[in-house]
Amino acid sequence: MTKIYARLTPLADSLPASVPFVGPEAQERARGRAFLARLGANENVFGPSPKAVAAMQAAASEAWMYGDPESHELRHALAAHHGIAAEHIMVGEGIDGLLGYLVRLLIGPGDKVVTSEGAYPTFNYHVAGFGGALVTVPYCDDHEDPEALVAKATETGAKLVYLANPDNPMGSWHDGPRVQAMIEALPEGCLLVLDEAYAEFGPDGMMPDLVPEDPRVIRFRTFSKAYGLAGARVGYAIAAKPLITAFNKIRNHFGMSRISQAGALAALEDQDYLRQTLDNVAAARRRIGDIAVANGLTALPSATNFVSIDCGHDGAFALDLVAALIARDIFVRMPFAAPQNRCIRVSAGRPEDLDAFGAALPDALQALQNT
Amino acid sequence: MTKIYARLTPLADSLPASVPFVGPEAQERARGRAFLARLGANENVFGPSPKAVAAMQAAASEAWMYGDPESHELRHALAAHHGIAAEHIMVGEGIDGLLGYLVRLLIGPGDKVVTSEGAYPTFNYHVAGFGGALVTVPYCDDHEDPEALVAKATETGAKLVYLANPDNPMGSWHDGPRVQAMIEALPEGCLLVLDEAYAEFGPDGMMPDLVPEDPRVIRFRTFSKAYGLAGARVGYAIAAKPLITAFNKIRNHFGMSRISQAGALAALEDQDYLRQTLDNVAAARRRIGDIAVANGLTALPSATNFVSIDCGHDGAFALDLVAALIARDIFVRMPFAAPQNRCIRVSAGRPEDLDAFGAALPDALQALQNT
Repeated sequence: MTKIYARLTPLADSLPASVPFVGPEAQERARGRAFLARLGANENVFGPSPKAVAAMQAAASEAWMYGDPESHELRHALAAHHGIAAEHIMVGEGIDGLLGYLVRLLIGPGDKVVTSEGAYPTFNYHVAGFGGALVTVPYCDDHEDPEALVAKATETGAKLVYLANPDNPMGSWHDGPRVQAMIEALPEGCLLVLDEAYAEFGPDGMMPDLVPEDPRVIRFRTFSKAYGLAGARVGYAIAAKPLITAFNKIRNHFGMSRISQAGALAALEDQDYLRQTLDNVAAARRRIGDIAVANGLTALPSATNFVSIDCGHDGAFALDLVAALIARDIFVRMPFAAPQNRCIRVSAGRPEDLDAFGAALPDALQALQNT
Repeated sequence: MTKIYARLTPLADSLPASVPFVGPEAQERARGRAFLARLGANENVFGPSPKAVAAMQAAASEAWMYGDPESHELRHALAAHHGIAAEHIMVGEGIDGLLGYLVRLLIGPGDKVVTSEGAYPTFNYHVAGFGGALVTVPYCDDHEDPEALVAKATETGAKLVYLANPDNPMGSWHDGPRVQAMIEALPEGCLLVLDEAYAEFGPDGMMPDLVPEDPRVIRFRTFSKAYGLAGARVGYAIAAKPLITAFNKIRNHFGMSRISQAGALAALEDQDYLRQTLDNVAAARRRIGDIAVANGLTALPSATNFVSIDCGHDGAFALDLVAALIARDIFVRMPFAAPQNRCIRVSAGRPEDLDAFGAALPDALQALQNT
């Protein structure tokens, strides 16, 4: 009999060795062929500011130094940008990393967490990873349902309730007053995890006012989307000071890449480039809408850098369409849960990316009709 | 009364909001003055390979893409480098990040972990962070004591026992057979955490043979030290396949910086530069030894990129000396625990760094005599 030396905890033992998403590189290796258009992970194909690239290139030769564990410069620049105190901000290894820390701080075996059926899987992965009990409510007309989320949180005594605004994977959003009303209705003891990864892409008035000392909500922002730095892994949380301080109990203090810190700082300082990106993304959303219409499909309204396209059939059809597009070298993904899984999700691309998508889509749809 | 919304777990609530190390940048901000020589964090002042810098600079403009969550290229290059299968390797956000994952996988409240009194604090931080019960044994003549560690692990039924070879903060080491004997003597149910962060700096024969399928040990290596990429956050673990796979249960799959992945790969491929670094470090160690002798102090033998200098008095004296050096713009640190804390720890620096250290030390010692 093999002797066992690595005795996992009962919780770890019970977890599957899973990944929330398969990366496009893994798909390319399996296919033996590169994608023509990379439109599946809501990356920002327009790329980071040239000033951010230059800052990272300059920092590369200084990579022998650990990054500042306090991310002092970046944190203070963010504080100035948002007009709040730096003590309300925690910088971390992307929103994914920060969500993991937050769940670790609050959730133990059996603790209830409420989210929407089909919302961000990586959050669910963290909840499961710390033994939390996930409870879901359905989307309502392709929107997350704030009132239902709060009702379920109240009913279950949840410690966390998750809302992405705007939403991934649907691209839908709520206006600031609706989200603020959700905050006001939260039961005591329940923290709102407000994931604003796509905040910059939305219309004015989409965000409730930033009240960083409000103990009821923690907001997450990132440099991965509008700032085009997904591969640099820089996100931040905004919350009341005691909660921000609590991250210091458990976080990997020296976990930030020094190069990424420099890139994020320079990206933040180049708001002109951000505005240009937002214009590019808005144009790409319109183009995706046109392509959808031209193919008899319906693009859903989006406040993000992607568009969900209603394929007018069930999840099996959309799954086949995603596969047919991938077979034609177009990397896209789709929502996980019904009824949202009648859609495919296409990230805003450059004109050449969307040319490739527009060329592949009719062919992919035709292939599905022929099967 | 303030209503509580963020209900921490009892464990999180009990933890201090501490940091294992204060970063040099924080010290510089507090002092209002930059350091002249950065010799306190065992960073590799000789820097990364120019090829690694070039690879990171090229990758900077591709930072809009997430990194490959499988770190496929880097993992396979490491596999080839070590002559083992890639399935035995897990790449992660530095050894610190990987140690956190390992502890999370194995340690729950009350689980015993054995280490040496005064060994790596970040490991202890992770153990405390998951509620583990740390048990320590003393160093023996400035070396970690493999036999005492195993005896204590056996006595306490520990799930993990930690050994750094070579050791930080003392720079001492054991030869391969001694470490192999430790592995052979491990009680069933106890995994050896073999931290080889400084592996490349040591003499031949310091490492036991790499037997990656051995379920009794997990070995950690890093690009932070010999490869000069501390700020890039890339480490890796080598272990039996089931344990490597278990990291996929909990790790932040998309946590690796794409730029760092590219830098580590290029650094690994430039073994000529590594050899040059090792020569530079060996010369710096000799120089630090000479400076110690010239000041009536004793440099301890080192298999790392730093030298611990025995100041011949107690911990209070060494603490004062560290402060006196910092006041003279020389960033150094010292061991935490007695009797090792009679030493100061000086990282291998460039000639100009050690010139600055050599100039400041007599003055700092003189200042101590005058108080």
